[in-house]
Amino acid sequence: MLKDLLKPEILDLIEAHRWTDLRDVLADWPAPEIADLVLHLRKEDRVLLFRALPRGTATDVFSHLELEQQDDLLRDLTDEETRHLLADLPPDDRTHLLEELPGQATQRMLNLLGPADLKEARWLLGYPEESVGRLMTPDYVAVRPEWSVREALSHIRVQGKDSETINRIFVTDERWYLLDDIELRHFILAPPNATVADIMDQSVVSVSAFAHREEAVNAIRRYDQFVLPVVDSDGVLVGIVTVDDVLDVQEEETTEDFHRVASVGPVRMSLREAPFQVLYRARIGWLLVLVFMNIFSGAGIAAFEETIQAVVALVFFLPLLIDSGGNAGSQSATLMIRAMATGDVRMGDWFKLLSKELAVALAIGLTMAVGVSMIAYFRAPEVIAVVAITMTIIVLVGSLIGMSLPFVFTRLGWDPATASAPLITSLADISGVMIYFSIATWYLGIGG
Amino acid sequence: MLKDLLKPEILDLIEAHRWTDLRDVLADWPAPEIADLVLHLRKEDRVLLFRALPRGTATDVFSHLELEQQDDLLRDLTDEETRHLLADLPPDDRTHLLEELPGQATQRMLNLLGPADLKEARWLLGYPEESVGRLMTPDYVAVRPEWSVREALSHIRVQGKDSETINRIFVTDERWYLLDDIELRHFILAPPNATVADIMDQSVVSVSAFAHREEAVNAIRRYDQFVLPVVDSDGVLVGIVTVDDVLDVQEEETTEDFHRVASVGPVRMSLREAPFQVLYRARIGWLLVLVFMNIFSGAGIAAFEETIQAVVALVFFLPLLIDSGGNAGSQSATLMIRAMATGDVRMGDWFKLLSKELAVALAIGLTMAVGVSMIAYFRAPEVIAVVAITMTIIVLVGSLIGMSLPFVFTRLGWDPATASAPLITSLADISGVMIYFSIATWYLGIGG
Repeated sequence: MLKDLLKPEILDLIEAHRWTDLRDVLADWPAPEIADLVLHLRKEDRVLLFRALPRGTATDVFSHLELEQQDDLLRDLTDEETRHLLADLPPDDRTHLLEELPGQATQRMLNLLGPADLKEARWLLGYPEESVGRLMTPDYVAVRPEWSVREALSHIRVQGKDSETINRIFVTDERWYLLDDIELRHFILAPPNATVADIMDQSVVSVSAFAHREEAVNAIRRYDQFVLPVVDSDGVLVGIVTVDDVLDVQEEETTEDFHRVASVGPVRMSLREAPFQVLYRARIGWLLVLVFMNIFSGAGIAAFEETIQAVVALVFFLPLLIDSGGNAGSQSATLMIRAMATGDVRMGDWFKLLSKELAVALAIGLTMAVGVSMIAYFRAPEVIAVVAITMTIIVLVGSLIGMSLPFVFTRLGWDPATASAPLITSLADISGVMIYFSIATWYLGIGG
Repeated sequence: MLKDLLKPEILDLIEAHRWTDLRDVLADWPAPEIADLVLHLRKEDRVLLFRALPRGTATDVFSHLELEQQDDLLRDLTDEETRHLLADLPPDDRTHLLEELPGQATQRMLNLLGPADLKEARWLLGYPEESVGRLMTPDYVAVRPEWSVREALSHIRVQGKDSETINRIFVTDERWYLLDDIELRHFILAPPNATVADIMDQSVVSVSAFAHREEAVNAIRRYDQFVLPVVDSDGVLVGIVTVDDVLDVQEEETTEDFHRVASVGPVRMSLREAPFQVLYRARIGWLLVLVFMNIFSGAGIAAFEETIQAVVALVFFLPLLIDSGGNAGSQSATLMIRAMATGDVRMGDWFKLLSKELAVALAIGLTMAVGVSMIAYFRAPEVIAVVAITMTIIVLVGSLIGMSLPFVFTRLGWDPATASAPLITSLADISGVMIYFSIATWYLGIGG
């Protein structure tokens, strides 16, 4: 096969660099065979032959090359040629190419894609859903440390027209490893003959393209920056995320948390626009789970039927007592969930916070015991002690459940906000029913 | 992360009080990480490390500490050190500090400020709490429309050194009326002989110094800007707000909303740092209110004592039914509260959303009626019809309460998030008890 390809007349045309004639000869060759031919040329001839091919054929041939040859070829093509090539490649070939190429080639490629392709490319590049890679844009300006400030500024003038933001300029070496970031104003304020290296402060905060987008949010917040460089696993600069994208992400994440805290599933659209089915699906799941969980509260009550029939007045205090446990627990859970979302509280803080929670919950429980005793005094004085003791214990137990569940869920790899108010309420109900009627049965000496 | 900070060599340097060596090690650490390190030192070591830091770094680190640590540090610094620190802080951070510190500390601080800073601080303090005026900084650069780009750039070079941000330059007339805003890059990209008027686009979004700070948040989000000019009631430029301040405000406001939804009052500090009294006060108020509200549930139960004594099995389903109303209501309320906070839903949308809410709630109620019927089938088949009808009505009523209350509260001038999950739960309990036992009494033909 190869021997057929390398017929003398073909070799002569190549030798003579008669690319136009060669194109005519190759016009009806299948792409895989042209690819084979390309493989057997000297490196410097490859790009010349490649350029001579019609655009569609060139793309086909490119698809049939090995990754290494593709990489070599790309290095020798102009930006314009590369852009055409990428635009013409079938999406899956493009993904494969972008995925497998070394970091600096990937980032050059991303720079060349138009905005519409970019969205697709980020998706195609295989960055996980909700990752920084999905959020980033390649519209930034990078300079080299050895350039003078004057050179850098004229590079910025040329490149800056397309850039999402040039308020922050990035410094990379020739392999696109991120070295530093410098605010544009430092270029303006520096003497024009200084080098970029002179105004570098050797301190740059970056985020991995594979990190969860919340990490970008936190980094931008923490370091008070408007723009954050994104690097791949080799430390090669592949894009930037800007604070306006982050604000949108933050709003989405916060809305998700709000919904979770109320046991609502993902809605992911305007509430005004959300159709019936989306709202129904988002709400029914947890509600049904909670109904079946509440069988246990019912079972608890059934177990104490004798006690209830002996002192029906006990039922008067039932919603009041079990709600209090749920309410105190919801408070604790929400305080924790929010503190975990903002990074104020971490997994390791559980034990440290436990003693404070116990103290606060005990104080709240005792205060509410006084309140419920006053109600019992007017209503059913025979159960004052029962409801007061029950209230204290229920608030304590509810708070502990509420405070701990977000940590437990985090440990299980779930979102801490899964410890929703309705879930806490149900758990507090179940424990509340057991505590209340156990104390009542024991204190009032009912049954055997 | 912290483990990285507390490497053995760092700990050794601290132990040995070798502050100068430590300073060298910390030279290229970002300020927030040094702040983390400071947080984990003994109190007596903190001020020593702090004194060892270069002045600029010390100020940055100070900005990243929690208020309490700032207060502690300030107590241990000499007047001279405090004056330097305050003079170096960006004005908006300084205002925030002065606002939040206990009275006597603020007083001491104001005494230490130079007359110029003092005037600025007082002026900044004159705007209402939570207003844009409290958030803004006067560190901006303004140019005149008749200047050439060259003149403007040299003005920016001189003024820019003190400015919080010069990424956006403001154009004013000689009376400081705000005319336009121009991004720094347009100055870089424009021909030096053009006038500022030539590169003006006559479009500027500004916010009033007296507006609520949430307005600045919304404007920055809406217009994807990093910096927003602040004007007084005459349209005179008085300052700027930057997106980093806005991110902090947004986080605070969102945390307040989260807490309100769980009936927790304002905490306004790190949960880890919050002392016992703050947490107790934030939580006890609503819990007590809700206990007394739940008397009505109890009274409802008492009114139906005869029904309960006739069919004690009804109590089995009590928590399950009333919780379902509360859960569905909490979902509706939270969906509305969040949509109102993000601006997705406004006051006028209530009626439009009502019919969708009714449809969704009815579908959810019917689904859950099927669920509870299955439970009743095995447990107490004589009440299947009662619990199924009750479930449907309770879910419908709970959802309507939950959906409408945020609108009612907004109309009353309160925060919609006051329609908290615990409040909705209590209201759903009261209506649930009445609905359940009314239907049971009527259906089972109990009493007269």
